[in-house]
Amino acid sequence: MKYKIQICFFILLFNISFSQDIIHEEQIRKIYDYTLNNSKSYKWLDFLCNQIGGRLSGTINAERAVQWGKNELNKLGLDKVYLQRVMVPKWVRGSFEYASIITSPGMSINVPICSLGGSIATPSYGLRAQVVEVRSFDELESLGKEKIKGKFVFYNKAMPKNFIDTFSAYKKIVDIRFQGASRAARLGAVGVIVRSINLRLDDYPHTGNMSYGDIPNNMRIPAAAISTNGAQILSSMLSLNDDLYFYLKQDCKNYPEVPSYNVIGELKGSKFPEDIIVIGGHLDSWDLGDGAHDDGAGIVQSMEVLNIFKQLNYTPKRTIRVVLFVGQKSGLRGGKKYAEIAKKNNEKHLFALESDVGGFSPRGFSFEADNDQLKNINSWQNYFKPYQTDSFLLVNKESIISPLKGNNTVLSYLRTDSQRYFDYHNAATDVFQAVNKRELELGAASMASLIYLVDQYGL
Amino acid sequence: MKYKIQICFFILLFNISFSQDIIHEEQIRKIYDYTLNNSKSYKWLDFLCNQIGGRLSGTINAERAVQWGKNELNKLGLDKVYLQRVMVPKWVRGSFEYASIITSPGMSINVPICSLGGSIATPSYGLRAQVVEVRSFDELESLGKEKIKGKFVFYNKAMPKNFIDTFSAYKKIVDIRFQGASRAARLGAVGVIVRSINLRLDDYPHTGNMSYGDIPNNMRIPAAAISTNGAQILSSMLSLNDDLYFYLKQDCKNYPEVPSYNVIGELKGSKFPEDIIVIGGHLDSWDLGDGAHDDGAGIVQSMEVLNIFKQLNYTPKRTIRVVLFVGQKSGLRGGKKYAEIAKKNNEKHLFALESDVGGFSPRGFSFEADNDQLKNINSWQNYFKPYQTDSFLLVNKESIISPLKGNNTVLSYLRTDSQRYFDYHNAATDVFQAVNKRELELGAASMASLIYLVDQYGL
Repeated sequence: MKYKIQICFFILLFNISFSQDIIHEEQIRKIYDYTLNNSKSYKWLDFLCNQIGGRLSGTINAERAVQWGKNELNKLGLDKVYLQRVMVPKWVRGSFEYASIITSPGMSINVPICSLGGSIATPSYGLRAQVVEVRSFDELESLGKEKIKGKFVFYNKAMPKNFIDTFSAYKKIVDIRFQGASRAARLGAVGVIVRSINLRLDDYPHTGNMSYGDIPNNMRIPAAAISTNGAQILSSMLSLNDDLYFYLKQDCKNYPEVPSYNVIGELKGSKFPEDIIVIGGHLDSWDLGDGAHDDGAGIVQSMEVLNIFKQLNYTPKRTIRVVLFVGQKSGLRGGKKYAEIAKKNNEKHLFALESDVGGFSPRGFSFEADNDQLKNINSWQNYFKPYQTDSFLLVNKESIISPLKGNNTVLSYLRTDSQRYFDYHNAATDVFQAVNKRELELGAASMASLIYLVDQYGL
Repeated sequence: MKYKIQICFFILLFNISFSQDIIHEEQIRKIYDYTLNNSKSYKWLDFLCNQIGGRLSGTINAERAVQWGKNELNKLGLDKVYLQRVMVPKWVRGSFEYASIITSPGMSINVPICSLGGSIATPSYGLRAQVVEVRSFDELESLGKEKIKGKFVFYNKAMPKNFIDTFSAYKKIVDIRFQGASRAARLGAVGVIVRSINLRLDDYPHTGNMSYGDIPNNMRIPAAAISTNGAQILSSMLSLNDDLYFYLKQDCKNYPEVPSYNVIGELKGSKFPEDIIVIGGHLDSWDLGDGAHDDGAGIVQSMEVLNIFKQLNYTPKRTIRVVLFVGQKSGLRGGKKYAEIAKKNNEKHLFALESDVGGFSPRGFSFEADNDQLKNINSWQNYFKPYQTDSFLLVNKESIISPLKGNNTVLSYLRTDSQRYFDYHNAATDVFQAVNKRELELGAASMASLIYLVDQYGL
């Protein structure tokens, strides 16, 4: 008798868990079907890129994007949509940036350059000096003040091609862009020219953040990125004549900080409203392109998750919040402010998901979580197999959601196929046309599926 | 004592297999590094697309491609390069193809169309008739002769969007294009217009093969594809006025068969020269674009495998043969001829690998093999993990290498991310610019790695 009851109980348990699996599989199938047929994300991205465009912190475009985000979230009929004030740095590219290689008196070759974000201007009449080409900080230091003083330092280190994950290649080289000016300034350089961080040979300079560190104002020097083709030309010319001159003129400028706003929308949890699940990307972008992959894609995918739940009449158990963070390009400002206020309000953040690796074909997710949490998460992997997004990794990285670290909050990141990412990153090529509709939508569907599972199972 | 010897023996075995693993890992790492830094494939593709272009069987371009392939393989310094004569059908698009929707007398809207491969022409003055829109053969049959006779049949079935593998979606719908004309002709239709097999709404008609089956010559009717946007317009117009007329004019034509040539290059095996491993794609292509993804990519990737082995001074144990097959678009002619001659010569084909799914980011391979062979192959999966190409599947499909089936030959296929494939397939959009250099190269490197393992381990 006792055994029979036990057996019945096991059969019951097995059936419950089996039918739960099927329910979840069906719900995820519905999420994908809806997204691939009726998604709003591509239309949203079209507007964000083509009607607004690049959204550099502190610009009118960034504020138009905030208003647009708020309006679109309002249209979804969420339980709450609001703004959260954040102070952001303001750096303006200015009205000209121009460079040439002066091969002999009266003879010059124009090369495509752009100011690095945070750089100071050259004098209004430009800067003319000889060039020292280096491939590393070690090489720079070994040359010393004597050879650097009064010259441009040209960092011509190519992004390594042989990493399968292109973000790993980026990490290997980004310090040169970030610290290049301060390291060269200490040795008396008058300016730095940095080879664009990009895997192709092309004519588009790729901007990006740089920092002067603790270098005093009067020692700061202008920093610009040169296109990869431009870098090849400059290097060839230097090999023929290392006395040649380089001319750089740019009028970018740092201004005092200005206010901007994180845009937040939420669906209140029906069962555990205190458990908060956050999804987000960053609304600000660089200004050379339209910020389509970086991070327009992440923004519209995050918004899409809530849209999908509304359209499928899915009532979440937990509170699901989309956050369009501002100020990512200037020190994760929006993320820090969001975490600060969440802490002040004693909010319990269960899970945060970021999409900021471009609107490419999704491959899976990476997680920052403890062992028990990971065990739970890995048990969901099978749900993602039919969608080819079941590659789950453990990571430790800095991102707009990093300030939420601690308090048992699981941080997670969409992972996409990264092969094309650096063709567009921080360059004029990062426009709407560079994003494929299906790839974008598949990312949104996989994000919604993950959030659905977190909402159903908790952690 | 006996035990000691056994233990020593096991340790020895373990060390051998362990150090073999490391050797293979290193060799694969070398293959990737070489390919991502020095690959010829992208330059080859540039020439094939931009200097030759579309290579429809029986055209001068197809023959220029044959000569080009032979010359390029010769430059690699292989042990043998030769041509293999194959008769191929010849269908010519002609000098005009044009269609419009006649909304009222004197009023018409042009819509983008293209003739389907194998279709006959309209009369030289064109064909003007009313239109019956259907979504399936069942719907067609249910309408019957009475409603179809004297009209165009407009097959307006959209390619389903909710398959993750887009080739599965293609298989669901391709019959309509292939059999549409013969099915409609039996019911007295005067012509067929088929919605392009494509997941986007765009203005590019997508061609492709069609067949009249056993329909006699005097009953054959012209068949054309209409762009997806064109299909939407035609359908809307028909919903307003189902008496409207459609006008189609095309002068494509079938000619007698002509000779063409499979291009073959090989590296002789140093240890088992009788074991043949084949790698290939198809050299012919559709004519609307430049056949960049379909299958220029597969051609240059296959050539690249031999180039990599030569450049890395790798001496294969087995004979490795690249075959640039012709006549794929017209009944797998090149594959059949190749298999026929291989059989006649009593050649032992161990393994054949085809690349014909576009130059997109690779995800893995699919195989047609028996259980023992599969067990061997699956034991290699770990080698592909660092390169994100470890997704191995079992399949059963028709391809240019299918005629090699039997005699224990393992057939295998490169698998790529298929999301963008149908944006380009059989359309004017399939051009060089649509192929990403790194994605193409990663495919070539993963193919070379697989072939390397087959060569080392056998099956």
